[in-house]
Parts: sequence; structure tokens; C-alpha cells
Amino acid sequence: MTVVSVEQALSGDLSPGTQVTIRGWVRTRRDSKAGLSFINLTDGSCFDPIQVVAANTLPNYAEAVQHLGSGCAIIARGTLVASQGKGQSLELQAEQIEVAGWVDDPETYPIQPKPHSLEFLREVAHLRPRTNLFGAVTRIRHCLAQAVHRFFDENGYYWINTPIVTTSDAEGAGQLFRVSTLDLANVPRTEAGDVDFKRDFFGKEAFLTVSGQLNVEAYCLAMSKVYTFGPTFRAENSNTARHLAEFWMIEPEVAFADLDDIAQLSEDFLKYLFRAVLNERMDDLKFISERVEKNAISRLEDFVSMPFERIDYGDAIEILRNSGVKFEFPVEWGLDLQTEHERWLTETHVGRPVVVMNYPEQIKAFYMRLNDDGKTVAAMDVLAPGIGEIIGGAQREERLDFLDRRMAQFGIETEHYQWYRDLRRYGTVPHAGFGLGFERLVCYVAGLNNIRDAIPYPRTPGHATF
Amino acid sequence: MTVVSVEQALSGDLSPGTQVTIRGWVRTRRDSKAGLSFINLTDGSCFDPIQVVAANTLPNYAEAVQHLGSGCAIIARGTLVASQGKGQSLELQAEQIEVAGWVDDPETYPIQPKPHSLEFLREVAHLRPRTNLFGAVTRIRHCLAQAVHRFFDENGYYWINTPIVTTSDAEGAGQLFRVSTLDLANVPRTEAGDVDFKRDFFGKEAFLTVSGQLNVEAYCLAMSKVYTFGPTFRAENSNTARHLAEFWMIEPEVAFADLDDIAQLSEDFLKYLFRAVLNERMDDLKFISERVEKNAISRLEDFVSMPFERIDYGDAIEILRNSGVKFEFPVEWGLDLQTEHERWLTETHVGRPVVVMNYPEQIKAFYMRLNDDGKTVAAMDVLAPGIGEIIGGAQREERLDFLDRRMAQFGIETEHYQWYRDLRRYGTVPHAGFGLGFERLVCYVAGLNNIRDAIPYPRTPGHATF
Repeated sequence: MTVVSVEQALSGDLSPGTQVTIRGWVRTRRDSKAGLSFINLTDGSCFDPIQVVAANTLPNYAEAVQHLGSGCAIIARGTLVASQGKGQSLELQAEQIEVAGWVDDPETYPIQPKPHSLEFLREVAHLRPRTNLFGAVTRIRHCLAQAVHRFFDENGYYWINTPIVTTSDAEGAGQLFRVSTLDLANVPRTEAGDVDFKRDFFGKEAFLTVSGQLNVEAYCLAMSKVYTFGPTFRAENSNTARHLAEFWMIEPEVAFADLDDIAQLSEDFLKYLFRAVLNERMDDLKFISERVEKNAISRLEDFVSMPFERIDYGDAIEILRNSGVKFEFPVEWGLDLQTEHERWLTETHVGRPVVVMNYPEQIKAFYMRLNDDGKTVAAMDVLAPGIGEIIGGAQREERLDFLDRRMAQFGIETEHYQWYRDLRRYGTVPHAGFGLGFERLVCYVAGLNNIRDAIPYPRTPGHATF
Repeated sequence: MTVVSVEQALSGDLSPGTQVTIRGWVRTRRDSKAGLSFINLTDGSCFDPIQVVAANTLPNYAEAVQHLGSGCAIIARGTLVASQGKGQSLELQAEQIEVAGWVDDPETYPIQPKPHSLEFLREVAHLRPRTNLFGAVTRIRHCLAQAVHRFFDENGYYWINTPIVTTSDAEGAGQLFRVSTLDLANVPRTEAGDVDFKRDFFGKEAFLTVSGQLNVEAYCLAMSKVYTFGPTFRAENSNTARHLAEFWMIEPEVAFADLDDIAQLSEDFLKYLFRAVLNERMDDLKFISERVEKNAISRLEDFVSMPFERIDYGDAIEILRNSGVKFEFPVEWGLDLQTEHERWLTETHVGRPVVVMNYPEQIKAFYMRLNDDGKTVAAMDVLAPGIGEIIGGAQREERLDFLDRRMAQFGIETEHYQWYRDLRRYGTVPHAGFGLGFERLVCYVAGLNNIRDAIPYPRTPGHATF
């Protein structure tokens, strides 16, 4: 008998009368007085469970079927028939039900068929994918990740897996995780008494990467269009709902491109991703919009249908100053925009996604390209209603003399960056790219408020289960 | 004027007479006595460069065009015309050539238009993607990675990004990289004098993951079909051509599946990947087969056209003992197969890929399912001509009492594995999966002997540039 997934059984591709085997986990069981049991069976392949109807004529009805509860695994064989209930077209008339796995002590099984708090579910991360919500989040996350790779592949980009462990010194060294095989109980010392990193695994200090951008630039200046999609790390001890110590980043980098090109790429990219979710995961989005965030569908539809607005940073400052709104943080040329300013710009002032461009040079990173005004760099942030900043990007400083001056200005020693300087010595071209935190995107699409719910296994400083 | 990539220009989709702009880097320049310069221009989009023909009537011919050398970046505008040379259909008749970036001190530019040793190129990893070989490797690697995601997506698998930093104790703790924010110059101690990991970032010891398998099993028992594709780490101080400290692993895990199912999945999966490379990257494969590994194409074609052989481990031992071959390592029931045995089985005895199944239980990991004979576990290795072991997999022990006995036998404390035991208490089902090192696969397809050439930035213990 053909094995089909619940998704295949409910897809409409199989006609009533088809004999199938369906395997999965019981959500709920309800018994009728007429001697029928109605079992909601899920296998994770789609949001909806399939209804399995088991009659008391099954040989193991009293001994097994009537003991099935939430979480039990079964293999059901039978015939697909038109459903009597509303909502679903087909259900499975069971001719045989085999129990693959029982639930020990069902009273204490953590995943009961009722709503659980997100806090509680973080404590049972290995079981939470069995809930409606985390099944939906997992499928949406998958759909987004596939769309990321597909978008870049279709547009001629090559995936580059930049190093995770890096010995390159980076900006913001205070937020780095060290990677080491030294014995912490007995750290080797040099004669001068310093830690002897020559005896560490890589022969020097090594850290987890905070970004693949600098590394991927080298590939950009050979392959023209490239991207990273991999984990990055920040040892920020800020236990907030918006930060993760470990998160996945997407960083495209394009040769012969300027800030406008990359602003356009941001728009095309985000719209492509959201269209993919709208096309492929409407089942999960419906659940999210009913139970989690009522605008989950409409805000994606709005997003893909409306053009982004582009505003110069200087104009944004003027608009904010003349807004009449009393902001908590000061608004002044030379200061960075705060979340309250960004949200007001995109949600209230424009009502659509906004790209703010050309920020003051002193508040942006050393590798960003100085504009002709000498005061701003070709940097941009993409702000979106309901989330604020979602993408940060820039044209890179491709002129060696300008780069050297900026490195000196930021107190960065060129010693570690000879290879990066080389890229400006040998066939340098204008190039630009952006960075996008994947989990922020998942939160936005799945209506999640806490970023720990966008990863399979949440960890927090001081509380790490896995 | 439309900007096109070299790939688009050479694709045959554009007719002679089309006006285009092509941007990239000069490979070589050759001047004819008739006052024409022939420039081979590459942009990384495909293996072949396009020939740009520049006449001495261009205003910057003497001052710029005649100084162009390997690595210079140019923007060429002109008309696509039928090529006079052999091999290529179209070339670009330049009407304008703009130099975007020169090469400082061309004599010392590391990437000269001549063959370089692989050792030398590892020292200039930021420039080696500009060579024919590493351009080809990068495109092949990308093609394989895309095919990995596509295969799983088309077959109903969900991508799960299991944790990179893990606080779970694992088998083989000696080969773990520690992740820490403690100050090594001043390690905090408990009153008893031990390292005080409570004061470390996660409040306990943390390491880089060696495998996502255990974590992904939890998702398998909720979503049915899942996979990981992410970085894993081994602090092995073996500086060989076959080991990396950081490498990407692919680990599918399937519910309601046994060892035969996963052997079939291995075969379907590898054939799908190799077909993708044969379909999409014949340009790069041709170069590989001409310069690196002459069987590069034919061995992939053989691979996809022939069925895998399946041999029981016990039978494999008998076959090896009766082979008449004098092996360096002993062949005996209960010992693991060595590379020489694996290579002989797949290359000489069968001449096709071989799946060896059901290994002695004492030489395989604790989580593998004990067979009914009580002596073997449902483990398998896939061996392929030219590479040896390429995939290792197993059916997992889904029975709690068997798992507990195996954990006790291997001296594994159950304390850290309560969540893993939970999976056997709550709706457990037979499940199976495999692991595949992505870089080994890239080496095989691209004909590379040293695994450091399959990653963008090679690092070795004691020599880590990036």
C-alpha cells in the first residue's frame, strides 16, 4: 500500500477510494457513541492534520485505539474517503492501525493538546516542534531559507562559505567568542608571563566570526556576484528578545555595483522571499494570523505590492525634526537613528518600507565608501513597518588611499588587513553588499516577538540546555 | 546599453549585432601587428572568458588598452559579433574600454597567467578564486550545495539549523573546540580551585558541535523528514590532506525508516547531486578532466548510471579474507574496515559504489540500533570508487531500554541525555539517517587531492591566515 504524507493525502491529487498508508503522531482522539474514533493525525509535512476514522470493529480497538492520546505514533492503513466534517476534503477510513510508539505516563507528557506558554516551550525545546506553532515556524523558516538560495542562484550569485573560526582581528573584539583547545585549568604562558597562544590549536588567537563580509569581498572581486548564508556569533550579554549569541546571516556582495544597486537588490530580494512564503506556506500563515499576529498575511501582501521609498539620511533628520513628535532620543545630524525614529519613518511617515541612505561617515564602519561630500558614506538601512531595521548595507571603499585613511581614523592596524588592502591594489572595482539577520526575518514573517523562538534550540546566557 | 555577464554573452541567447556592456577582469592580452588587441575577459560567471577585440582607433588605446595585463578590471562596451577564433561563437567588438582598476606593480602580482602550485595558492587564498581552477571549484561547490537543498526540498524534507555552539557533552570530547568568553590570562576559579564555568558566557562549558544528528532527531520525530546542512568542527591535530578542523556536514534524518530506506536515500541523493553537476557545470568539469583528473566526467557518468551494490559486513569480511590480496591491516570479524579494504571492495571487487551494512556493535556509536542477532547494529557505510567511504549512516536505537543498555556499555552518563531519552518515551518510531562531509564530496567531484582546496579559505593548525 502506498505510503503518503499528510500533505499528499490532503493535496487533492489523490482521489477518494485510494488505498494508502499514513504515518504520524496523534494530536487528539474523540470517540463517538456510535463506536467510531476520530483521530487527528499529523506528520509535520503541512499544517493541517488528517482525520483518521477508526471503527470499533478493528481488532485492536479496545486494547489500543481507545488508549491513543496526544503524541502517540501510529501507522494507519485504509482508504481515503470524502470527509463528512467541514474544512477538509478527504479523511482516512482506517482498515488497520498499528501503534509504533506509546507515550509514557501521558499525564506528565509536556505537549498536551492545549495552548502552552512560549516560556514553557523553550524549556522543552526538543518537543516543541510537535506543537502547531513550532511546526509552522519550522516550515516557514525552511521556506525562507530555500527562497534565499533560489533567489541568488537564479540571479547568478555563487554561495561562498566564509570561515566560521577566524584568526583575523575584527572590529568590536569585546563581543567575540574565543575558540581554543588550551586547558583552562592550566593555561600555558610565555616567558614574559602572557598567555602563549602559539600553543593553541591554530598557533594564534582564534574567534568565532561576526560577519563573512570582508572574506566574501575577495570572492566578489573574482566571481562578480556572491553571497554568504551561514552562522555568525556575538558574545553580547544582552538577554533581550531581539538578540541571539548565534544567528544566521545572509550577505550578498556585488561587483561593479553602487549604493543604488544594492538598495534595489534589497527590495527585489525581500519581495521574492515574502512572495515565496505567500505562495508556499499559506496554511501556516493562516494559523499565524489567527493565533499570533493578525496582520501576518496582509503585511506581507502589502510589502510585496508597494515600492520602497528612498530617503537621504540628511532629509530623514529634517523630516524627524519637523515631525512634531516628541522622541525619547535626540534627533540631530551626526547621530544614529534609534528604533523609535526608524519605526516612525517607515510606519507613520511613509507607511511603506524605507531605505535611508548616506549616513554620516563617523558613525559607520571603516570599510564604507566616503561620498564626494567628505561627510557621509554610501551606507544604507532598510526599515520596514512592524520590524524597523531589517537590512544594513553599503558600497565598500574600493580606493586604497581612502581606505587607509579611514583605517587610520578608526585606529585599525593595517597589519591584519594586508590581504584586504590587496583587493584594492589588484583590479579593484566599485562593489557593494548588505547583511540581513535571518532570524529577524523569520520573526517578522512568523509574527514572533522573541527571537529565541525563531531558532530550533533557544539558548540564553546562563541557561543553555543544548 | 544592457549589462550582461560573460555567461549570458556566450550562452547563445544573444544574437550577433547586440550592443552590450561586459565587465570583468583581464586574463590575458595579445596585440596583433594589424593594430588589434585581443583581451580574454572573465567575470567568474562561467569557465570560459569572452574575447574582447579592441582596435587602435580607440581613444585610450595607447595610453590604457596597451597596458592592460592580468588582473586589471575593465568595463567594455560594444557589439557582439561572430568570433573568428575557434571554440567560441561570439566575441565583443569593443567601442569603448574603461579601466576600473589597475594592478599595482604587475611584476609582483601573485596571480600570473601561468600555472601555480596549489601550495603557493593556499598562501594567497584571497586571490586564488581568480584562477581557472578555483573559479571552477567555487562554481562546482555552489552547484552541489544548491542541489543538496533542492533535493531535500523536492522530497519533502525541512532544513533544521541545529546549534553550532553546544553545551551538550558529546562522544569524543577530546576533539572538541572550547567556546568561551573567559579571560585566559585570569581564569576564574571556584573555592575548590576548579575553573568556574558558571562565570562563562553560557554559565557552563560550551563547545563547537561535532554533529547535529542528536539534535535533529528531535525534529525528525515531529516533522518526519528533516536535514541539517551546516558547519561542524573537529579539533584533530592531524595535518593531513583529508581532514579539516571546520567543515560542512549534511545530515538527513527520516522517521518510520530503516537501514534499507537510508541506503536507498544515499543512492538517490548522490546520483541527484552528480546529475546536477553534469547538467549544469560541464564547462568546469571539462577543465577539471583536462588538467586535474582525467576521469572527472566519466566517473560521475558511471556513478549515476549504475546501481549501488549492498553487502553485509560479515560477507564483506569473508570476501576480503578470500581475496588473496595481502592487505596492510588485518581483516577479521569485529574489526573496522580500513581505507585499503574499502577501496578494494568498491574499486576492484564490485567496480561500483557499495553499501556495507550491519557492522559489529562494539565498533559503532551508542545510538545505533542493535540488530536481532545481538552482535551487529544497523549501521552502513557507502563506499565509492576513487574516494572510499563517502557516507556513514545508521538506523537509530528507538527503544529506550536498548538505548539505556548501550549508553551504560559505552560509559555514557544519561544525565546530559534526558532530552534524547525523552524522544524514546514519547511516541518513538523507527528512524534512520546519514552524515556526509560536504568537502569530501567537493574534492571527489572537482578531482582535488587536498581537502583544503575545497574550502574558500584554507587553514591548518599553526598556519591560519584568516
